[in-house]
Amino acid sequence: MGVVIPLEESKNKLASVQPLVDLTKADMERVNQLILSKAGSDVQMIPEVANHLISSGGKRLRPMLTLASASMFGYQGNAHVKLATSVEFMHTATLLHDDVVDESDLRRGKSTARMIWGNQASVLVGDFLLGQAFRMMVDVGSLDALDVLSTAASVIAEGEVLQLSVAKNMETTEDDYLSVIRAKTAALFAAASEVGPIVAGTGKAERNALKSYGMNLGLAFQLVDDVLDYGGKAADLGKNVGDDFREGKITLPVILSYRRGTADERAFWKEAIESGDNGDDNLEKALGLIGKYGALNDTIARAVHYGTIASDALAPLPESPWKSALMEVIDFCIDRVS
Amino acid sequence: MGVVIPLEESKNKLASVQPLVDLTKADMERVNQLILSKAGSDVQMIPEVANHLISSGGKRLRPMLTLASASMFGYQGNAHVKLATSVEFMHTATLLHDDVVDESDLRRGKSTARMIWGNQASVLVGDFLLGQAFRMMVDVGSLDALDVLSTAASVIAEGEVLQLSVAKNMETTEDDYLSVIRAKTAALFAAASEVGPIVAGTGKAERNALKSYGMNLGLAFQLVDDVLDYGGKAADLGKNVGDDFREGKITLPVILSYRRGTADERAFWKEAIESGDNGDDNLEKALGLIGKYGALNDTIARAVHYGTIASDALAPLPESPWKSALMEVIDFCIDRVS
Repeated sequence: MGVVIPLEESKNKLASVQPLVDLTKADMERVNQLILSKAGSDVQMIPEVANHLISSGGKRLRPMLTLASASMFGYQGNAHVKLATSVEFMHTATLLHDDVVDESDLRRGKSTARMIWGNQASVLVGDFLLGQAFRMMVDVGSLDALDVLSTAASVIAEGEVLQLSVAKNMETTEDDYLSVIRAKTAALFAAASEVGPIVAGTGKAERNALKSYGMNLGLAFQLVDDVLDYGGKAADLGKNVGDDFREGKITLPVILSYRRGTADERAFWKEAIESGDNGDDNLEKALGLIGKYGALNDTIARAVHYGTIASDALAPLPESPWKSALMEVIDFCIDRVS
Repeated sequence: MGVVIPLEESKNKLASVQPLVDLTKADMERVNQLILSKAGSDVQMIPEVANHLISSGGKRLRPMLTLASASMFGYQGNAHVKLATSVEFMHTATLLHDDVVDESDLRRGKSTARMIWGNQASVLVGDFLLGQAFRMMVDVGSLDALDVLSTAASVIAEGEVLQLSVAKNMETTEDDYLSVIRAKTAALFAAASEVGPIVAGTGKAERNALKSYGMNLGLAFQLVDDVLDYGGKAADLGKNVGDDFREGKITLPVILSYRRGTADERAFWKEAIESGDNGDDNLEKALGLIGKYGALNDTIARAVHYGTIASDALAPLPESPWKSALMEVIDFCIDRVS
């Protein structure tokens, strides 16, 4: 089904991540080298599993945030490369564990590591990458950066457990859901963006600006991801439309449709989400209800709201190509649904 | 089956962990308080799962090692309590993930967390505890201690993956097996013992002494654990005799029996270990072969060997009640099989 972008967001040219990619190109090559080196081990299964996921075509948005948020303050050293790699490893470890928790078969159109090497390898290689991430942070030696990233590690895991404990509960409110995605997605975006100014040695205002930018960008990113699950094309997404629904996952489009629905419609959602095993019939009905209540457009409107907060967080910083690139990433995240 | 303790190890009175327990009693109360506080979360499932394991009657040997190895150098602050708690959380996280990897139903005679709350909660609460462990280390602020413990985290995970990749392979040598237990068990004992002198601000010699003590104590501890799995009593162990064998786990008693066996006996081991689904008949046959080749006594002899290295590592340090207590722990670990 089509998604209508709110008028004020439509542009002749869609926003792009390309300026950020171009600006961080040289540093990202160093990140990629470090990823390969730190995912290495004499235990052959470790690089196999790690590289399967690392080379599977993610955008590497999070490490680019760290690089840009250090470089925009004139940082020239090597610490941001190590922290960016740590951030990507934390993210990769989370994905490996998520696939086990969600019992996922596919990620980005490829078989998940757990389907090839088993749940065991996914759990343990995730643990290894997390350990390597911490070693790189320790190597950088900034206790402030360690504080931010270790706190993020706890918060992410706490958010995942929260998600597990509200799973299948249709009384989940939008606020509950926001708590989940703030922890499980946005906290790492925030940490990735905050450690840049930390290693660059800026003042507290710049740290807070980048932290707020990352947090709100992360919320917008996750909300758009939730919309894409219902509105995207399988070929583009590397996963099937409606995967979240098929598995009974509660995301904002479901929450809005449920709360706005009739008693009969709410009964449908309850049963479908609780069963967590939905076929095409149920998906078609769900898409109809989501359309009826404008739940995708309204989820996008929420994403635009957080995107605006991210933009205002950066606004006071001096103009630079870095700032423009980070600003454009906000629109890029939201424009993905068009 | 009975186990004969080598003559030079037999004593009138068995060695005890009690002196260490007594010396660390006040600090362990602070550790226990900190465990409860840092395993807390508004997400109710987290303290439930964490407390299930934390309160299930482990000896808390690792945090006592950290406390003693700081106190023996006169350390008086609070950092060793935080690091001891971090060490226990790292251990708890490993147990939660291990139970998922091994698909275990029982630990210390109680249902495993994964049997009660599911694999998902075990993976995620483990991640949370690991995150909390790192936050406490960061709070202590010693980059040296962070380096030791984050390296241990990587090495432990690497050891677990190594164990996974040699699983069911009967060509595993004693050296291969030692690499596994050095990483998955002894590395945390070593790190727990090394961070004590680090926070106490000793010289390099004391750090190395405690690290070597912990590493070799850990090897002895794991080897005796392997013997206990074949020789202990279910009531004492909280698990059934022969669990390792039933699941097809390769430990040193199996390696020795296999390598010393006839062609027929080797064929038996190969099939039993590869099937990983052994009943009482096979267990009885395995116990017979283990007895025939003295594999339990020889595994204990290996444990005694590493225990002696641990003892010699501590030998040059000045005499004190702490040193005596740590020395007695070596014998205690080995005497457990009697």
